[in-house]
Amino acid sequence: MSYLGIGASPGNVPIHHGSNLKVTDKKVRIAELILRCLILGLAVVAAVLIGTDSQVQVFFSIKKEAKFTDMKVLVFLVIANGLAAAYSLIQVLRCIFSMIRGSVLFNKPLAWAIFSGDQLMAYLVLAAVAATAQSAVISKFGQTELQWMKVCNLYGKFCNQVGEGLASSVIVSLSMIVLSGISAFGLFRLYGNNGAKSSVT
Amino acid sequence: MSYLGIGASPGNVPIHHGSNLKVTDKKVRIAELILRCLILGLAVVAAVLIGTDSQVQVFFSIKKEAKFTDMKVLVFLVIANGLAAAYSLIQVLRCIFSMIRGSVLFNKPLAWAIFSGDQLMAYLVLAAVAATAQSAVISKFGQTELQWMKVCNLYGKFCNQVGEGLASSVIVSLSMIVLSGISAFGLFRLYGNNGAKSSVT
Repeated sequence: MSYLGIGASPGNVPIHHGSNLKVTDKKVRIAELILRCLILGLAVVAAVLIGTDSQVQVFFSIKKEAKFTDMKVLVFLVIANGLAAAYSLIQVLRCIFSMIRGSVLFNKPLAWAIFSGDQLMAYLVLAAVAATAQSAVISKFGQTELQWMKVCNLYGKFCNQVGEGLASSVIVSLSMIVLSGISAFGLFRLYGNNGAKSSVT
Repeated sequence: MSYLGIGASPGNVPIHHGSNLKVTDKKVRIAELILRCLILGLAVVAAVLIGTDSQVQVFFSIKKEAKFTDMKVLVFLVIANGLAAAYSLIQVLRCIFSMIRGSVLFNKPLAWAIFSGDQLMAYLVLAAVAATAQSAVISKFGQTELQWMKVCNLYGKFCNQVGEGLASSVIVSLSMIVLSGISAFGLFRLYGNNGAKSSVT
């Protein structure tokens, strides 16, 4: 932190750097904001699509309703998307605030918090997507060796809506992966100065 | 790259830095080597445990054999662990080679390659673990709403061995997540010099 100098604010530090770096920083920041907005939107879409999904079918005069709560993994996916949306909303506000202030992130604890949050979210959403995809494959094709029948031929509309929510979640998780790379860049470049300067002399 | 100076080798650059940084670098490098060895070992264990798993049961004089190939997700997990093991072997050799040479990574393309490989492996293994965990939960507890019966009461030994392989894989994926953080640190600190120096003047 020593290179930050005395007099820098404890949070963000105003930009004074060369135009080249300024352009790169701006591009990274705009990419971050776009990705966070995309995640916010798609995570809400995914959570709503899956959370509101239900279908009633009549088998031999017996009514059966498929709900997303019938599969615990769908509940997990809705929660993961909900968390991703809430987290992204906070991050979008932070991005906009720091853009208005025209400041760059040079605060290590904050950079660590953003990095950790992004990593956690990326792994959480990916795990939820992978688990749901596995259940979706079984629902669609069955697992005959274990006598788990496919159910999507019975609840076609329900399955399609889950598929749409899952597709949204896949984009959310890919965007979170890219974002976690961006926030790793934002954090670890703060450690570059000492290392590079003092190592090659 | 400009701060690397002319005359630096295209691969690694010898250490000339202060003792403080040298100690940190050494600690990070030892942690990296230990983690990579751990991953190598546990990924092999997981792949072997699951890949050799089978159990024959007789139901009313009909023989039935449970094999890991009956569940495609187990094949995916074996492949993911196999890839993680092969990748870790290469990385362990690289770590040992760079330790013997006593050099530090300051080559951006190589750092990018390691970072990308680690990220890819972390997400791949995590996805395989999450998908398998989902199938394991269904196998253990069933999914009565969809009439997917639990099968672990029939193939107890088979399920236990999958559970052991899955536990190994969980440690592999957590280690890969930590490693991908370390390699992100190794990559992005190379970008720190310009940013920090020129921004706060």
